Amino acid sequence: MASPGGRLMTRSGFPGLLTCLLTGALCTGAAQAEDPTWRQVAPENLVFMDLQHGQVVIELNPAFAPKTVKQFRHLVKDGFYDGLSFYRVIDGFVAQGGDGSDLGELSEVPLIDAEFERDWSPDLPFTPVQKPDLFAPETGFTDGFAAARDPATDTVWLTHCPGVVAMARNEGADSSRTDFYIVMGQAPRYLDRNMNVFGRVVHGMEVVQAIRRGAPGNDGIVEDETAASRISHMRLGSEIPDAERPAVYVMHTGSKGFEDLLRSRRDRTQRFFHRKPPEVLDVCQVPMAGRTTR
Amino acid sequence: MASPGGRLMTRSGFPGLLTCLLTGALCTGAAQAEDPTWRQVAPENLVFMDLQHGQVVIELNPAFAPKTVKQFRHLVKDGFYDGLSFYRVIDGFVAQGGDGSDLGELSEVPLIDAEFERDWSPDLPFTPVQKPDLFAPETGFTDGFAAARDPATDTVWLTHCPGVVAMARNEGADSSRTDFYIVMGQAPRYLDRNMNVFGRVVHGMEVVQAIRRGAPGNDGIVEDETAASRISHMRLGSEIPDAERPAVYVMHTGSKGFEDLLRSRRDRTQRFFHRKPPEVLDVCQVPMAGRTTR
Repeated sequence: MASPGGRLMTRSGFPGLLTCLLTGALCTGAAQAEDPTWRQVAPENLVFMDLQHGQVVIELNPAFAPKTVKQFRHLVKDGFYDGLSFYRVIDGFVAQGGDGSDLGELSEVPLIDAEFERDWSPDLPFTPVQKPDLFAPETGFTDGFAAARDPATDTVWLTHCPGVVAMARNEGADSSRTDFYIVMGQAPRYLDRNMNVFGRVVHGMEVVQAIRRGAPGNDGIVEDETAASRISHMRLGSEIPDAERPAVYVMHTGSKGFEDLLRSRRDRTQRFFHRKPPEVLDVCQVPMAGRTTR
Repeated sequence: MASPGGRLMTRSGFPGLLTCLLTGALCTGAAQAEDPTWRQVAPENLVFMDLQHGQVVIELNPAFAPKTVKQFRHLVKDGFYDGLSFYRVIDGFVAQGGDGSDLGELSEVPLIDAEFERDWSPDLPFTPVQKPDLFAPETGFTDGFAAARDPATDTVWLTHCPGVVAMARNEGADSSRTDFYIVMGQAPRYLDRNMNVFGRVVHGMEVVQAIRRGAPGNDGIVEDETAASRISHMRLGSEIPDAERPAVYVMHTGSKGFEDLLRSRRDRTQRFFHRKPPEVLDVCQVPMAGRTTR
C-alpha cells in the first residue's frame, strides 16, 4: 500500500507483482505486450477529451447504452463540447460538463431514452466479484466495466464507480440530452439504475481530479465561468488516422490474469495484514489499469 | 446532482436542502452558525498543512490513536515535515508523505505501537449507519469520524474512507514512525484494523487531489523529486494565537440534523429516482462537510 510502508517496504523486497496487488496500482512490464490480460479498445469506442490542463481518455460502452453512445458520438463529431466547461464540480462526487444552458425544449438536440439497465444474457461476459454486494445481489465486470446484476429480474447494469461517465438529466427518466458527468469520488451507488452510464475514464483520472471545483454551498456550480476547467477539444478515436491514434489498452476482465487479481485481493495472505481482511471485494475498489502507447 | 441534472434541474426548483442531500454537497447557510449540527474542532486537534498549491486542514483523533497523535504533534511542532514531499502517490488510492528515507533503525524518532482498534465503550458516541456493512458487522460515526464496530469482540475502529490520514508502516504492526498517507480514492477498507488511522481531512480535499502522482508502474513513487508536491509548512492549531487561528467546524455527527441527513440518504423518496435505491448507506459515501472561518 499504501499499505503504506514508505520506501522502506517498497525497497526491501516486496516483489513487483505483490506490490501491484497490494497497492492497487497497475502492474506494468514488458510481458504485457502479448499478455491476454490486456484488451485494445476499438477506435469507435475511444474518446480523447483534451482539457486545458491535460488529456482524459474515455471508453464508450455501446453494449449497455447504445442510444446514448450514438448521440454522444454525434455531439463529439459536431464539436459540440469544444470550448465548453465543467460547470458543476463537487469534490468527492462528480464533475459535470456541457453547455449547462437552460435550453430545455428550445434545444435542437434530441432527448435520449433511459438506458438504466439491460436484460441479462448468457452471452454477456461477466466475471463475478461479490455476492451479495451491499447495493446489489451480485457485482462483477463485463468487458472492463464494473457492473451489477439481479438474477431475480434478469437485469444487469453499470455501477457508479469512480471514473464512470454518465448523462446528466432532469427529473424525467428520458430527459438526458448533452451534458455528462464523471464520477470523481466514493462510488455514489444510489444512482445505479437511475442514469445513463455510457463510458468510463481509462486514462487521466488525475486530470479529472484537477478539474476546478465549484462552491459546495451552491450545488457545486462554478460561479466564475472564466475560471472553470474547459474542454479545448474532444475527438473520437475513429476520427484520428490509424498512424496517429494512440493505442489504448485496458485490462481484459475475462482473462485468467484478472481473475487471479480478484482472488489475490479477496484473500490477502501477506504478512503485512496482521488482521486478515474480510474476504469481500468492493467492485469499485478493484484497480482497473489502462495504458496508452503511441 | 450529479444526479445530474445540470443547471436546469438546479434552477427549476429543487430546494436547497434537497439539492444538498441529493448531491452530497455540504449544505451551507446562515442558519448554521448557531446550528447544533456543527462542532468546532479543538485547536490541539487541528493541523494546518500548507502545500505549495494550497492548504489542507486535518482533524486529529486522539480518542482512537493517542500514541500516534502524540508523536505526530511532536513531529509537527519540531518542523519535521516542513520541506518534505509526497513521494508515493497513487491516483485513486493514497498520497504518502514524509521523509521517505531508509533511515530504519538509524532514526532517532521512536516507533509507534499499533493502534488499529480500540475497545468499545458505551460512553463512545456512535451514530449507526449500516448493519451489516460489506466489511464490518456495523458502521457508524463517532465524533465526526467514520467507524465500524464488532459487537462480538467489543471493538471499534476508524474506517479507511477518502480523506482519512493514517501512518505508513513496514511489515511489523508496531513499525510506523513518521510517514503518513491520505486516502484519496475509493475506500480501501481492506486496510481497516491494520493501520494507525489518526486523523481525517476536514478541508482541502481538492488540494490533496491535486498532489502530483507518481508512476503507477513503480508503486506510485514520484521519481522526479523536484516535481513532487511539497509540504511547505505544517502547524498545529494550538501553535497559532487565538486571534489568528481560523475556526474550523465539522458536522456534529451526534446531532439530530446529522441523523436526518443519514435518513434522507438511506430512504430516497424524490421523484428523481425512478428506481428507488436500496435502503443502505456506505459510511464512506456520507458527505462530511467542514467549514472554516476566519
